[in-house]
Amino acid sequence: MGLVVQKYGGSSVADAEGIKRVAKRIVDAKKNGHQVVVVVSAMGDTTDELIDLAGQVSPMPTGREFDMLLTAGERISMALLAMAIKNLGHEAQSFTGSQAGVITDSVHNKARIIDVTPGRIRTALDEGNIAIVAGFQGVSQDKKDITTLGRGGSDTTAVALAAALDAEVCEIYTDVDGVFTADPRVVKKAKKIDWISFEDMLELAASGSKVLLHRCVEYARRYNIPIHVRSSFSGLRGTWVSNEPHVEQGAQKVEHAIISGVAHDVSEAKVTVVGVPDKPGEAAAIFRAIADAEINIDMVVQNVSAATTHLTDISFTLPKTDGRKAIDALEKAKAAVGFESLRYDDQIGKISLVGAGMKTNPGVTASFFEALSDAGVNIELISTSEIRISVVTRAEDVNNAVRAVHTAFGLDSDSDEAVVYGGTGR
Amino acid sequence: MGLVVQKYGGSSVADAEGIKRVAKRIVDAKKNGHQVVVVVSAMGDTTDELIDLAGQVSPMPTGREFDMLLTAGERISMALLAMAIKNLGHEAQSFTGSQAGVITDSVHNKARIIDVTPGRIRTALDEGNIAIVAGFQGVSQDKKDITTLGRGGSDTTAVALAAALDAEVCEIYTDVDGVFTADPRVVKKAKKIDWISFEDMLELAASGSKVLLHRCVEYARRYNIPIHVRSSFSGLRGTWVSNEPHVEQGAQKVEHAIISGVAHDVSEAKVTVVGVPDKPGEAAAIFRAIADAEINIDMVVQNVSAATTHLTDISFTLPKTDGRKAIDALEKAKAAVGFESLRYDDQIGKISLVGAGMKTNPGVTASFFEALSDAGVNIELISTSEIRISVVTRAEDVNNAVRAVHTAFGLDSDSDEAVVYGGTGR
Repeated sequence: MGLVVQKYGGSSVADAEGIKRVAKRIVDAKKNGHQVVVVVSAMGDTTDELIDLAGQVSPMPTGREFDMLLTAGERISMALLAMAIKNLGHEAQSFTGSQAGVITDSVHNKARIIDVTPGRIRTALDEGNIAIVAGFQGVSQDKKDITTLGRGGSDTTAVALAAALDAEVCEIYTDVDGVFTADPRVVKKAKKIDWISFEDMLELAASGSKVLLHRCVEYARRYNIPIHVRSSFSGLRGTWVSNEPHVEQGAQKVEHAIISGVAHDVSEAKVTVVGVPDKPGEAAAIFRAIADAEINIDMVVQNVSAATTHLTDISFTLPKTDGRKAIDALEKAKAAVGFESLRYDDQIGKISLVGAGMKTNPGVTASFFEALSDAGVNIELISTSEIRISVVTRAEDVNNAVRAVHTAFGLDSDSDEAVVYGGTGR
Repeated sequence: MGLVVQKYGGSSVADAEGIKRVAKRIVDAKKNGHQVVVVVSAMGDTTDELIDLAGQVSPMPTGREFDMLLTAGERISMALLAMAIKNLGHEAQSFTGSQAGVITDSVHNKARIIDVTPGRIRTALDEGNIAIVAGFQGVSQDKKDITTLGRGGSDTTAVALAAALDAEVCEIYTDVDGVFTADPRVVKKAKKIDWISFEDMLELAASGSKVLLHRCVEYARRYNIPIHVRSSFSGLRGTWVSNEPHVEQGAQKVEHAIISGVAHDVSEAKVTVVGVPDKPGEAAAIFRAIADAEINIDMVVQNVSAATTHLTDISFTLPKTDGRKAIDALEKAKAAVGFESLRYDDQIGKISLVGAGMKTNPGVTASFFEALSDAGVNIELISTSEIRISVVTRAEDVNNAVRAVHTAFGLDSDSDEAVVYGGTGR
């Protein structure tokens, strides 16, 4: 039995009862012969309450102090969890991100982990302790200041510790049973996925699936750390994310599915730059202006230029929260770039079909578009990768579109058979 | 203008409004040309709420994790305070006890400061920052674990930092206007003391005055750091505690008072060991049993032995909270010591008259006893030091006794004249 890293989110430790339930689960893993490292988030709404307090004293809380404030949340949950474990007769020690050796860069509020030196964790484990580590936080390499990793950063803390400690598995405990073939709130017949590859999980996370963050999966793939996403309430087997399924991950019953799942995202908006001269350097000038404003864009589409005017339109999607900033940046660049006008549309949604199987199964794209067409959904933009197709539609069509596609690809839980694709090419 | 250390208690930073008010006061000190280091406690009832949470997950929270938990409180208040100061256009950085170099021993929940290495604070000040430091907490020298200094420890943090940084003054901001000649809740005519010596303040603190803790005053005396106790609400001049009053401490108008004040304490109980054989070693055996149970005792009185029986009674006072433990320890030692019985009485109170002037003013003791007698208060025990007389009375007599003594020694705010003592000896 090797080392296991377990991560519990805020909803799992929302109150004293939750903390005691989690403590019991941790002790069970220890009794099963594992060395156990636990990464814990702040209790329930603590972080939001602290953000609210900060807003009351200052309209623009700054990085360093804001991080100092937020890290109080995990300090409380980790100390209480250690106490609850001791109360069950087992030894436990809690560690801040800094004490656990989570070294980051100096970008406050969204720092990146650049090294993990878990010497104190190793010592605590060797002395028979369960180690409890504050998620979401680290210490900056240069200034030794407290940093935070941004929302969902506790998952990354867990995977990074699992990699540094060479853990067998990183278990992410949450309030759902695992990763589903679609959002169960939208698709009643969505199925829990038993196993999914890092690649497919990365595409799902990038396409709007909220269960695991892209950054965390990326880290796990780089260090080849299997992730087991499961419920802290049910104790059931959840979803394994790894390179190849092993026996304990349900290898016997897992076949590589052609399609892993359908993701959707209604948090983006679409900007269309109208009347762009069709000559070299125009697109570059537009996206340089966007990049200088530190805005990440998602899909980009350029129409074919009209033969008579030699003008084209360029559309791209971006987080709604960056919409204002993008429009401002483009208005400023208007004279230099020379486009005609801007259109902004935040009533859009994105539906993505993800699965490594589409590389070798021709016809997936056609089936996807047929399903959307049959559901009466109009497609506004299309973008593809090797293992993903995404389309942009009207926001109000998204739920219908997701259900139609989920059914069309045989993902509904009633039918256990995957559909077979015919036709030539995608 | 030199360096000033300011300390704000939990009631001063109980909510966002309080934090903003305190931030303004701090910025004013900075504008006056001072380098400013601020020590801050947890907001309002935060610490009690955390203790309550701990009690919900574990009936006996342990030292290390309990300290980790409690220190979350100052982390929140210090970060918010730094944000509020920045919002007023001044630079501020917050530091945990560990970051501020507050090195302690490893006695969790009531650690003692053994060194202060404020290198990061010094750097922050040199760069023009206001430094905000978490009170009440430190880091253990050997294990690098987070420790807390026990209740009221923030005052000690402030004085220790003031000493390490060679501050001009340590300002303790609180919710009262200063140190009074008696508890104003009991004596309506109690006066604020403008200046008091370290020695008298130590005796008052040891005798039940709650404004400053004994440990904090002791530390200030050792390093000769003047303390200025004042209200964070009124901004008025408060009470200076130092070796000798200087001009800024109101030296012109301060004359050394004969009596500094009257303190009282109803938190103690009295244990009487009845029928102790009057031979060498008996008292030692009794107090060894008490010491082994780690109980601190206050007053001790041994009666004259009865000539016929050669038996005597020994009485002592101790915190009520240790009463059960003391009785248990003595019952166990009964056979070895050979006393007859134990009496326990927790309906007592202690009244103490404090003032260095009593060394040179004979008759203070006589006046004290006369005042008590005139008020119809019976004295049960007496103990004296060079600059203090304490008596134990019935608990229900304490308030009357304090008022009577306060009036008798001319401390009431109506009469500005101190009484003159006659007679021979105390």
